Parts: sequence; C-alpha cells; structure tokens
Amino acid sequence: MSIDRDLIKIQKAFGERVRELRVKKGLSQFDLASHCNYEKSTISRIENGRTNITLKTALNLSSKLEVKLKDLFEF
Amino acid sequence: MSIDRDLIKIQKAFGERVRELRVKKGLSQFDLASHCNYEKSTISRIENGRTNITLKTALNLSSKLEVKLKDLFEF
Repeated sequence: MSIDRDLIKIQKAFGERVRELRVKKGLSQFDLASHCNYEKSTISRIENGRTNITLKTALNLSSKLEVKLKDLFEF
Repeated sequence: MSIDRDLIKIQKAFGERVRELRVKKGLSQFDLASHCNYEKSTISRIENGRTNITLKTALNLSSKLEVKLKDLFEF
C-alpha cells in the first residue's frame, strides 16, 4: 500500500486518539487549543485526520493531555 | 520546561531510537535512505536529532524498519 494512503489512515487514527484522550480529560477543543496556543480549527483538523503533524505538535499535545508521547501513537 | 527545549531532547531520543532500530536490522544510513527515497544526509540529520519530523516521515521510517509507528516512540 502507498505511504500516502497509509498516511491518511494513520492521520485519522492519530486524530481519533487525540480526541479520545481530550474527552477523557474533560477538555473541549477550545480548551486544548488555548493550552497549546493553537486555533480551535487546528485541533479540529488534527482530530479529523487532516494534518500531517510534526513531532513538536505531538509533543505539545502530549504535554497538555498529560500523557507520554508514545501514548498518542497507541492505536 | 519550554516546549522548544523539550523538543530538542525528544528529537535526540527519536534519532537514537531510529539508529538503534536501523543497526539492529543491519542497515546502513544509505540503505535506509534509499528505501525511504531520502538523501543519506536526511537520515543522518534525523538520527542526530536535528529534525522536527512529520508523521509521514515517521510512517515511512517505521515501514522500512518493519516496526509499528509507536515503537519509534519507545523511549
């Protein structure tokens, strides 16, 4: 399977994982966005699997969600 | 601690993990680079912790190193 097709699948799985962890912490998209100094639309795009995130974004999310970086990739 | 200082630490840990997995598979930097359609210098920069990699790069590396994506973040 092509990397790009895999990437779309992985972006979706990553986004769902972020949403799952955010909801578990009782945070809204706006809460998480403001914690990370992002727009709410950025969190929405990430959770909907439409972003090829960077390590820095993953690190920022993991610190605000209070999980280890590898936990974001537990899918 | 600032995200940027954390990022440098995480980039280094990620780079060491890629090197560890690459060596374990008996691949040179050139082998891994050509598998991923990267320049050797790109693999070298990643392994030396000087790259804020994207999800696509992590996916490409994990598929060539034949590990799960989350295994790259096992540090």
